[in-house]
Amino acid sequence: MKKDIQVLAFDVFGTVVDWYGSVRQEIESMSLNVDSDKFTLGWRDGYAPAMKRVSSGELGWTLLDDLHRIILEDLLKQFNISGLSERQISHLNKIWHRLNPWPDSVEGLTRLKSKYIICTLSNGNLGLLSNMAKRAGLPWDCILCAEVFRKYKPDPDTYLGVAKVFDVSPENVMLVASHQIDLKSARQCGLHTAFIERPMEFGPNRLNDVSPNSANTFHAKSFVDLADQLNCPD
Amino acid sequence: MKKDIQVLAFDVFGTVVDWYGSVRQEIESMSLNVDSDKFTLGWRDGYAPAMKRVSSGELGWTLLDDLHRIILEDLLKQFNISGLSERQISHLNKIWHRLNPWPDSVEGLTRLKSKYIICTLSNGNLGLLSNMAKRAGLPWDCILCAEVFRKYKPDPDTYLGVAKVFDVSPENVMLVASHQIDLKSARQCGLHTAFIERPMEFGPNRLNDVSPNSANTFHAKSFVDLADQLNCPD
Repeated sequence: MKKDIQVLAFDVFGTVVDWYGSVRQEIESMSLNVDSDKFTLGWRDGYAPAMKRVSSGELGWTLLDDLHRIILEDLLKQFNISGLSERQISHLNKIWHRLNPWPDSVEGLTRLKSKYIICTLSNGNLGLLSNMAKRAGLPWDCILCAEVFRKYKPDPDTYLGVAKVFDVSPENVMLVASHQIDLKSARQCGLHTAFIERPMEFGPNRLNDVSPNSANTFHAKSFVDLADQLNCPD
Repeated sequence: MKKDIQVLAFDVFGTVVDWYGSVRQEIESMSLNVDSDKFTLGWRDGYAPAMKRVSSGELGWTLLDDLHRIILEDLLKQFNISGLSERQISHLNKIWHRLNPWPDSVEGLTRLKSKYIICTLSNGNLGLLSNMAKRAGLPWDCILCAEVFRKYKPDPDTYLGVAKVFDVSPENVMLVASHQIDLKSARQCGLHTAFIERPMEFGPNRLNDVSPNSANTFHAKSFVDLADQLNCPD
């Protein structure tokens, strides 16, 4: 029952923040003389395979900051970028801490927070997500993520972990995300799901499918739209 | 160096919230016909021994909510309280989610947040601390606690864990607490420490020692006083 929802858990990369636009803009500002679109997408494309290396046991438990660094070092070679100092590479790697929210994110989250517990459920690490929230003004009640559960999504322990933390049933939790695969995994654990349209998540050259799936409890164009549908006060 | 402090990690029970006053008031409102001062202190007195059972390995990893419940069941027998339903006992146990902040807490934290990352470092669990923060308006950047590190303070992994999460050195972190023993353990891990005077933590019948210890980096009468000493804007 929709009315039993008490906790909203948010996917972050792509759903709350515009990683593509933020990373691409910062790469461009660095004058590295690379195709910033390809570099940005290449970094993100390394994400799922890197996490799979952890989930499969090939790598021991590794935080996303460290996975980002492994992917970045490959990319720097691939794009023939040399001459960056350790300090510059380390700062560049933390670009993922400096992502900008979508225009509706702060307003929508603030409204949703008035009626629900709002938390992250991201594969990012605690430091990354805290720094991001502080910089972007994201008003989380709690930051939950792979680092807390020591499992990456889509491991069921992550979705069920949110319910456990708040001592509620899975059906009292709704995952909010812009990726059908994440939402499907959450549904298999008994959570409600809300799909958010983020057609530009991967930039202008790789449009994101935003077609509705009736298996989701809600389908919204933005967090503000979701707040409207959930009757959260302005 | 004091100027290197980037992260303030706060003890919570007694330091941020008035557990004694909050628990006692709610116990009185329940008309249980018990000495509310003794009941409240008895519950809290069970806290350290219960955590020791976990740290010693006698109990497996157990969240504070569950330790509070074990202590509560003993107390109910001890005070000859019967006739409460499971639902009432469960609600009573979550009294620790409903603690009120000291009068200076929200104002002080808000000012400190403008200059530092502010997080909890509590033996409470994530759900407890999130519910408390939401209800009391505590503006944490991140909630860190025993549940995240799977160790209870004063285990060094908890103090050092804060530095790890934010990818900084221990001397970039300051523990803020009203208990010298907690601060001493933090100092042994290389953290800065700030003592906050909470003379009434244990109520009017068991005054809390608030005498200064020069080993602390700061000694403050309140969070607002600490914000003043750290030159945080109003």
